[in-house]
Amino acid sequence: MSTSYVSPAPYRIALAMPRDVAGWFFPPAVLDALPPELELLSREPLESFDSPEAEVILGSVDGLLTCWGTPLIDASVLDRAPRLRTIHHAAGTVKPHVARVCWERGLQVTSAADENAIPVAEYTVAMVLLANKKIFQLSGRLHRERTAMDPQALFPGMGNHRKRVGVIGASRIGRHVLRLLEPYSLELCVADPYLSTEEAAALGARLLPLDELVATSDVVTLHAPSLPSTAGMISRALISALKPGATFINTARGELVDQDALAERLAVGDVYAVLDVTTPWVLPEGSPFYELPNVLLTPHIAGSLGTELERLAASALGEASRAARGEALLHEVTLAELDRMA
Amino acid sequence: MSTSYVSPAPYRIALAMPRDVAGWFFPPAVLDALPPELELLSREPLESFDSPEAEVILGSVDGLLTCWGTPLIDASVLDRAPRLRTIHHAAGTVKPHVARVCWERGLQVTSAADENAIPVAEYTVAMVLLANKKIFQLSGRLHRERTAMDPQALFPGMGNHRKRVGVIGASRIGRHVLRLLEPYSLELCVADPYLSTEEAAALGARLLPLDELVATSDVVTLHAPSLPSTAGMISRALISALKPGATFINTARGELVDQDALAERLAVGDVYAVLDVTTPWVLPEGSPFYELPNVLLTPHIAGSLGTELERLAASALGEASRAARGEALLHEVTLAELDRMA
Ligand SMILES: NC(=O)c1ccc[n+]([C@@H]2O[C@H](COP(=O)([O-])OP(=O)(O)OC[C@H]3O[C@@H](n4cnc5c(N)ncnc54)[C@H](O)[C@@H]3O)[C@@H](O)[C@H]2O)c1
Ligand SMILES: NC(=O)c1ccc[n+]([C@@H]2O[C@H](COP(=O)([O-])OP(=O)(O)OC[C@H]3O[C@@H](n4cnc5c(N)ncnc54)[C@H](O)[C@@H]3O)[C@@H](O)[C@H]2O)c1
Repeated sequence: MSTSYVSPAPYRIALAMPRDVAGWFFPPAVLDALPPELELLSREPLESFDSPEAEVILGSVDGLLTCWGTPLIDASVLDRAPRLRTIHHAAGTVKPHVARVCWERGLQVTSAADENAIPVAEYTVAMVLLANKKIFQLSGRLHRERTAMDPQALFPGMGNHRKRVGVIGASRIGRHVLRLLEPYSLELCVADPYLSTEEAAALGARLLPLDELVATSDVVTLHAPSLPSTAGMISRALISALKPGATFINTARGELVDQDALAERLAVGDVYAVLDVTTPWVLPEGSPFYELPNVLLTPHIAGSLGTELERLAASALGEASRAARGEALLHEVTLAELDRMA
Repeated sequence: MSTSYVSPAPYRIALAMPRDVAGWFFPPAVLDALPPELELLSREPLESFDSPEAEVILGSVDGLLTCWGTPLIDASVLDRAPRLRTIHHAAGTVKPHVARVCWERGLQVTSAADENAIPVAEYTVAMVLLANKKIFQLSGRLHRERTAMDPQALFPGMGNHRKRVGVIGASRIGRHVLRLLEPYSLELCVADPYLSTEEAAALGARLLPLDELVATSDVVTLHAPSLPSTAGMISRALISALKPGATFINTARGELVDQDALAERLAVGDVYAVLDVTTPWVLPEGSPFYELPNVLLTPHIAGSLGTELERLAASALGEASRAARGEALLHEVTLAELDRMA
């Protein structure tokens, strides 16, 4: 490693993730354009922390770049990484990758969840606009029946004007959804036990109790994290309270929803669902969600994919650069907030 | 009719449209809440101008409210409507309803096309966001195959980040599309022979020649009016120039597109289409557009429907109120601009 007399030593970084993931997030073009304050110890990512190469790299790394599939960073990893100061996760949740001991030993952990929230919110905006207009229903009917139809007779009260959209969770994603839905003539409501009426108003939304939000919204969209306290929070009672004609969108986690109750309500045929996530993912062949004409399933694609990964990689590298220059980090995840985070 | 000493006589208005249309746009709640400057001559709409009732109403009406299905207002109608000064169309194009003679005799004509543009732009925004992410393809596959899949292997380069969206026509709708797509990390381009580079930049878009726009955009969305000069403007040559992976959205009119060439290109399978309008509408049973897995048809529903009609009715009534108070009209359609308008 070359250091000059005047500039500080570059910050030594390494990629710790499966090789295919590294290829998606950190392709050669990205690695060729690293800023001078970062020194990549190897272009080969560490797929495991238990190889001879890992031994060498852990011995001198300052900042680890992690991603989907990174093995857990626990005490045994830290013991072999005496200089390690920061972990920069180039994806959403850090929970499966970063053990508590990392915080306890004073490491700083950052995530790209802020950036990963953007495409999920974009997916949600599109689905809200199509749901209120019953586009999926009308399109399916046209392809099947091949005749003229009277949309307003089929769906009285359709349309995106003055419909209520209920956002569950002023999470990163929930906040982007509220921001992106602001230009439309929709009534925005939010339910979140950690939010005040004033904070909701600042987000352009009306704070409602969860049950009132679910029972009065034309679209209910779920953006709460999966936590012990949120398991099954979309209960049978809430699902039966959905307004006839309403659409339920889940891009959060299947665990948050009583899926049996949802399938039963959907079988009645008077509500709609757009589900990017289910439990289990993938659903078994016989799941009613595949067959019900009022359900649109997507294969867990609301989050960042393809070109959207560039933003996550840039976010993680930006944090590494800040760490290298001794600047404040922008996307730090603290132990205190971990318990209410995705 | 009661007039008071101090206030001017109210402006006499009448509805001229089919009864069902009047029921959708001007339900009792709207008619009950008319402002004092407007006097509705009859709650029954004129379905024709050739009835005894029409004779009476035309004899004293100042402003006609028109809509879908209003019969043509020509010289014979004007001859029987000596006080008629304004025509307020509560929908998009006035062309099938208002003859040139209305302008030639000095009437003012307004339309709600500005408001009707909003839902079409909303539909377009949703379709752009889903098209770049290949949501329809991936959802269809999941419902059919019921197994896990690797979206990035199926659609390399998918995603909404840094994709080019090409808007054809800085029309009312085209401008709303550009405005609503501004918050996303999309590259916005526009093609319009009536637009300058500076005007495009003010709309947040880069002005491109039509052929370059079509050949380089990830989504091409058509918002030009149907005119003799635009018939078939999306030619076979342009359609073959579409980028592999691109999506073509048509919410304008089928007449603008060489549909045979489009069907042939779609049969190759390397591009996608979202078509809210076709020629003819409805397509014949055997049309390939029904069968092709890369085509999403919707039954001409991008425009205002359901709750969205409230905006159109309010717009037309607002113009009538302005006419009544002698104020400048906000949505006047002039003869000069009619030749390049939808
Ligand atoms: N479909 C996908 O591809 C995809 C991608 C990313 C995230 N997600 C999921 O989206 C959800 C939101 O992710 P995020 O990163 O925005 O979350 P986040 O970590 O920002 O959410 C934390 C916030 O959620 C709110 N919250 C906590 N408990 C709540 C409760 N009981 N009710 C309502 N609100 C509550 C609080 O405001 C808290 O601050 C998570 O379930 C996450 O797993 C899905
Ligand atoms: N699908 C629906 O439900 C629906 C609803 C409303 C309108 N429409 C259609 O949408 C289209 C746009 O409607 P609008 O009200 O926004 O139109 P508009 O009347 O505002 O369009 C006029 C503008 O189009 C542009 N233009 C004219 N010729 C052009 C050309 N050759 N190439 C590119 N741009 C050109 C010019 O800027 C002109 O000022 C029309 O075809 C209309 O019929 C469809």
